[in-house]
Amino acid sequence: MRRLRFGICFNGTNYHGWQVQKGVRTVQQTVQDALQKMTGARDNITGCSRTDAGVHAEQFYFHMDTASKIPPEGFRRGLNTMLPPDISVFEVCEAASDFHARYSTFGKEYIYKIWNADQPNPFLQGMAWHYDRPIRVERIRRSLPYLLGEHDFTSFCAQGSSVKDKVRAIYSADVDCQGRLVILRFYGNGFLYHMVRILTGTLVEISEGRMEPEQLADILRAQSRDQAGRTCPPQGLYLHKVVYAVQERPPGEIGAASLDNLEGVY
Amino acid sequence: MRRLRFGICFNGTNYHGWQVQKGVRTVQQTVQDALQKMTGARDNITGCSRTDAGVHAEQFYFHMDTASKIPPEGFRRGLNTMLPPDISVFEVCEAASDFHARYSTFGKEYIYKIWNADQPNPFLQGMAWHYDRPIRVERIRRSLPYLLGEHDFTSFCAQGSSVKDKVRAIYSADVDCQGRLVILRFYGNGFLYHMVRILTGTLVEISEGRMEPEQLADILRAQSRDQAGRTCPPQGLYLHKVVYAVQERPPGEIGAASLDNLEGVY
Repeated sequence: MRRLRFGICFNGTNYHGWQVQKGVRTVQQTVQDALQKMTGARDNITGCSRTDAGVHAEQFYFHMDTASKIPPEGFRRGLNTMLPPDISVFEVCEAASDFHARYSTFGKEYIYKIWNADQPNPFLQGMAWHYDRPIRVERIRRSLPYLLGEHDFTSFCAQGSSVKDKVRAIYSADVDCQGRLVILRFYGNGFLYHMVRILTGTLVEISEGRMEPEQLADILRAQSRDQAGRTCPPQGLYLHKVVYAVQERPPGEIGAASLDNLEGVY
Repeated sequence: MRRLRFGICFNGTNYHGWQVQKGVRTVQQTVQDALQKMTGARDNITGCSRTDAGVHAEQFYFHMDTASKIPPEGFRRGLNTMLPPDISVFEVCEAASDFHARYSTFGKEYIYKIWNADQPNPFLQGMAWHYDRPIRVERIRRSLPYLLGEHDFTSFCAQGSSVKDKVRAIYSADVDCQGRLVILRFYGNGFLYHMVRILTGTLVEISEGRMEPEQLADILRAQSRDQAGRTCPPQGLYLHKVVYAVQERPPGEIGAASLDNLEGVY
């Protein structure tokens, strides 16, 4: 058996998220079915995170243990032939036996795209949240430092999550405007269920003047979901980058085929 | 009766082009149906050009003569409420009685987007042409000057077009790369049927080395469709900008609501 690491990119519009669920179409199911056709075996695959229905990934990794002898590039080409065009494989490489798509991550970066105009953008259907009140970017910018560093993010975690330890670190957070597209970016060591969508919803309420930037400190301290703002819809959310610890990267295997060059165009 | 000018933007993926045709869904039909609900009358509308199935428009104008007393802003808001999210109205204004959406144009700018990578981009489905051989941008750049100025573009017009005079002027043409997205841009006084798609197909053949940049002069001179390259598919084509002569613009009515700010994000 060998362990392989796969890097994929998907438009989540037509999927009920990554994770296999009975009766619905998911990214994991679609990829597993294609892999089974290639290897003839039902090898289990493990993703770097769960994603919700409608959420996108510009970088998503999973690992697979397999007895197949197909070389990594053969997997990449073969999968790209079999997968629908809303899922694309940009990298396949051999991984160390102790590499784990989820537990070996050093950090993840999510972005949230808001189309801030009075009418929807015909070219961003399902790919951004349409929000029609003017966003006061400076109020959001002043809020972001309160989120940096290690905190208990219970207030920003959807109720019903089974995760016990809700301490996470946000390494960086910023907001940027490209015309009428407002892009929020969060880089941290891990994110709780709905965390980025609740963070964004809270920042939008600060933009609206319903909360003040300084209140973020109180909200974090309260450790109570009902102190934070609403949960923004899924279509604005993108898993943008997954960073693995340097020693987990088999030298020479990763990099050339990465999606780095694409960033400007999404 | 008064004449109104409407500026819209549409994602053409789910339409058989602008022009009304029996038995298929078109942008004109969709817009006319919505207008009829607002005014109670079947007012005829005239577009600035035809577009093919799957072709997009970031700016598209039409005019309408109507007895309705609804103010321009009322039309804009009302239409945006009734139209599907892949059509958006960014401007409605009163127009002079001799304004004509098609004949008053000074120039039009089309862009053609090519996703140049070995696998399709999950976020550009239906919004760019996926072409997997490396594009040699310098060869295209060297070709563009041959197209500038006034020429008979018969070689770049689809056979079967009923237009007699095939002389058109291209004012500017350029090529730009944003990561793996190659964007061609043509600005001119008018374009023949399939002209931008045939120009792009020919430039791609020059990129491939099947033709030389200098040959464009011969192809133009030949006035024969079979001398030029293939016709690129519709999903990469966008009507990007429509320019009307300055005197056609009712002062103070146009500009503020235009889509200029959006350019960076499409």
